[in-house]
Amino acid sequence: MDYKFADCISTLQPSLIREFFKYNGVPGIIPFSAGNPSPESFPAAEIAEIAKDIFADHALTALQYGITEGYAPLRETLRNFSKDRYGIGTESDELIITSGSQQTMYLATKVLVNPGDTVICEEPSFVGSLNAFRSFGANLCGVPVDSDGINIEKLEEALTTQKNVRFIYTIPNFQNPSGITMSLEKRKALYELAKKYGVMILEDNPYGELRVTGEDVPQIKSLDKDGIVIYAGSFSKILAPGVRVGYCVAPAPVVAKMTVGKQVSDVHTPVFSQILVDEWMKRYDIDEHINKIRDMYRSKLNLMCDLVEEKLLDYVSYTRPEGGLFVWCKLNDNIPMAEYCRKALDNKVTIVPGSAFLGDMTATTQCFRMNFSTPSDEAIVKGVNILADIAKEY
Amino acid sequence: MDYKFADCISTLQPSLIREFFKYNGVPGIIPFSAGNPSPESFPAAEIAEIAKDIFADHALTALQYGITEGYAPLRETLRNFSKDRYGIGTESDELIITSGSQQTMYLATKVLVNPGDTVICEEPSFVGSLNAFRSFGANLCGVPVDSDGINIEKLEEALTTQKNVRFIYTIPNFQNPSGITMSLEKRKALYELAKKYGVMILEDNPYGELRVTGEDVPQIKSLDKDGIVIYAGSFSKILAPGVRVGYCVAPAPVVAKMTVGKQVSDVHTPVFSQILVDEWMKRYDIDEHINKIRDMYRSKLNLMCDLVEEKLLDYVSYTRPEGGLFVWCKLNDNIPMAEYCRKALDNKVTIVPGSAFLGDMTATTQCFRMNFSTPSDEAIVKGVNILADIAKEY
Repeated sequence: MDYKFADCISTLQPSLIREFFKYNGVPGIIPFSAGNPSPESFPAAEIAEIAKDIFADHALTALQYGITEGYAPLRETLRNFSKDRYGIGTESDELIITSGSQQTMYLATKVLVNPGDTVICEEPSFVGSLNAFRSFGANLCGVPVDSDGINIEKLEEALTTQKNVRFIYTIPNFQNPSGITMSLEKRKALYELAKKYGVMILEDNPYGELRVTGEDVPQIKSLDKDGIVIYAGSFSKILAPGVRVGYCVAPAPVVAKMTVGKQVSDVHTPVFSQILVDEWMKRYDIDEHINKIRDMYRSKLNLMCDLVEEKLLDYVSYTRPEGGLFVWCKLNDNIPMAEYCRKALDNKVTIVPGSAFLGDMTATTQCFRMNFSTPSDEAIVKGVNILADIAKEY
Repeated sequence: MDYKFADCISTLQPSLIREFFKYNGVPGIIPFSAGNPSPESFPAAEIAEIAKDIFADHALTALQYGITEGYAPLRETLRNFSKDRYGIGTESDELIITSGSQQTMYLATKVLVNPGDTVICEEPSFVGSLNAFRSFGANLCGVPVDSDGINIEKLEEALTTQKNVRFIYTIPNFQNPSGITMSLEKRKALYELAKKYGVMILEDNPYGELRVTGEDVPQIKSLDKDGIVIYAGSFSKILAPGVRVGYCVAPAPVVAKMTVGKQVSDVHTPVFSQILVDEWMKRYDIDEHINKIRDMYRSKLNLMCDLVEEKLLDYVSYTRPEGGLFVWCKLNDNIPMAEYCRKALDNKVTIVPGSAFLGDMTATTQCFRMNFSTPSDEAIVKGVNILADIAKEY
C-alpha cells in the first residue's frame, strides 16, 4: 500500500536529539548531546518507599481510571506550590496535570493553532517544542536571543509583520539550548508586547529550579493580570523524567479546551505517577532536595565552563549560564559547524549541531550545544579537551 | 482576553461519559453509566510485588527518560504475545507502546487524517474514539451495526459515496456500546472492501479477552497480508486502566509516523508503567488471570441480561452480548429516550443516552447503554428493577 500521511506530519522528522539517544549508552562515547538529568539526582529510595505505600494504601485509586484534569490532591498541592513559590495562578486560572510538560506545548498548540497560523519562538529554541508546533502546521517565526533574553525590537517587528500570531513561546530560565536567562526588564517588555498585540505567551519552565548562581527572576506568569500566559511546569528535572508528570497553569477557558484535547489523546496521566509526585511533595523537603541537585550541577557546570574558558575560547564565543543543563557555544567563522560536529562524533564526543534548534530548518548557524548533567566529571574533562584538539586543526 | 480556539477543537465537547464520572462515587447512585473495569479484577497484590522489585532492580531505568517507541523488553514481549495469541504481526509491521489504547486512535488520526477527510465508523461507536477523530477535523460517516457486526452493504455504499476516506474504525469484539461481535465472514468482507477501495482499517480490541460465552473469532489484523490494518491492543481491561499502557501493531511506515507524533505529544509512556506490564506478563499466567476476570464478568453479565430479559423486554429490544462490559438496549418507540435517561438519573440510576455514541451528533436514537462491571450485584438487581418501573409509566 502507498501510505499517504496528513499534511502536517508528512515532512516532520524525529528530533535529532532523540536520535542521538542511541549513542548515550554506548561504551566509550562521551554524551555531551544528552539532555537527561543526572540519575544521581533521582530520590530513588524515597520513591521506592512511596511506591510501596501507594500500593498498600491507594492501590485501587492508582489502578483505576482517573479524571482527565488530574488527580485532585495533586492539583491542589500544585495550585498551592505554584502560588506560594512563584506567585502564579489567579482566580481566572486553572491547573491541569499533563503527561510531562511536553504535553503542555502540544495541547496549547492543538487548541490554539490552525495550520498556517504563526508561533513566535526564540531562535534558537527547544526542538521538542518546535516539532510540536510544526505537527499542527504552525508557521514558526524565530526571534534572536541576546545575552539577557529575547531581542525585544525584533520581537515587536515579528508581531507587526507576521500574520495570525497565536502565541510567543519562551523558555525564560536557562533557555534550551542557549543557557540564557531573560532579565526581569525583558520579561515585562515581552508581556506588554504580547498584551498590546493580543497574542498569548507560552512560558516553559523546566529548568527554573536548576539555578547554580545569581538571583531568581520572577516568572512571566506572575505578571499575568490579563489572562494571556500559559505556564508549563515540570518534574522531569527536579524529581524524575520517567514518571512523565508536568502541569499547566493557564486561563480557565484555555485549560478547559486543553482538557478536551487531553481526553482524546491519552484520557489521563497514569494515576500512580500522579500520586507519587503528590506524596513526594507532601513528605519531603523539596528545597533540601533541590539544593542537593544544585550543588551537583554547580560543580558540573563550573567544571565544563572553566574548561571551555580555558581551552576553547580561542575558537568559540559563549555566555556562561547561571543554571540549567546546557552550554551553548558559537564557533568562529573559520570552523564549519556541521563538519566540526561530525569530527567530534568520529572522536566519540557527541555534541548537537545548533541547526537542530532553529525554527527555519534551512537556516544555518555556527553554534552547537553541550550538556553537563549526563557525562561523568572525567568525561567532561576528556570531552572538552578533545573538542579543543579538533578546533586547533582549523 | 477573547480566546480564539483552533477550528478542529472549538466545537468539541468533553465526552458525556467522562462527564458522568462525577456520579460514579456518589453514595446511593447506581452507576450503569460507567465503563470502568471492576476493581476486583486488578491483580493488586502482584502489582505491589512487582513495583517493589522495579524500584529495587530497575529504579534508574524506571525514572530516567526512555525512548518514544517504548521499553524494549516490553515491545519484544508484546510482539511475541500478539503473534502467538492472535497471529498478528508480519515482517512489514512494527509495534509501538502507547499511553493507553486511546492514544493509538489519536495518533493514527494525527498521521492519516487532514481536516475534512472521512473516517468511517460503526454506528453507534465509542465516543472517545469519535472525539479523537473529530479533534483533527475528520468528517465522520456512520455505518449501522447488525447483530453480527457492521452492515457490509452500507459499508460499501459509504466507501463509494464518501470522499477521501482514510480508514474504517471498528471494534470487532463486544463492541462499545452495542456489545455486538463481528462474525468472521464479515471481518473477511470488511477486509476485502478496505483493500478494494484502498483505505486502511483501524481495529480497536480493548474487550477481546472478556469473552464469557461462545468461540473466539480471529482478529482482522490476522488477515492482513496487504499492510492495511492498524491494530490497537490494551491492558486497561485485563490488567488495570490506571497504568495507561496500550500497544499498536501496524505497518512500519505508519508506526514510524506515529512515533514522531508521540514524540511531540508525550515523549514516551512512563517507564515504570511499561516495566510493570512487562514483568506482569513474564511472571504470571495471563490465562489464569483472564479466566478469573471472565468468571467474574460472566456472572455479572448473566445477572444483568437475565434481569433485562425478565423485566425489560416489554419495553426494549436488545442483543445479548457474548462478553465485554456493556448491554445496549433499544427503547420501544413510545418511550422518549432522553426523557427516560433523565428519569433514570432522577431515580439514581445513571445510564448513557445512545446519542453520545453517534458520529452524527444531530441524529437521534432510541438506545441507551448500561455497564455491568462497575455496579455491585445488588445494585444491578435494584437498578434494572428501577428501569423497568420507569418504563411501565409509559
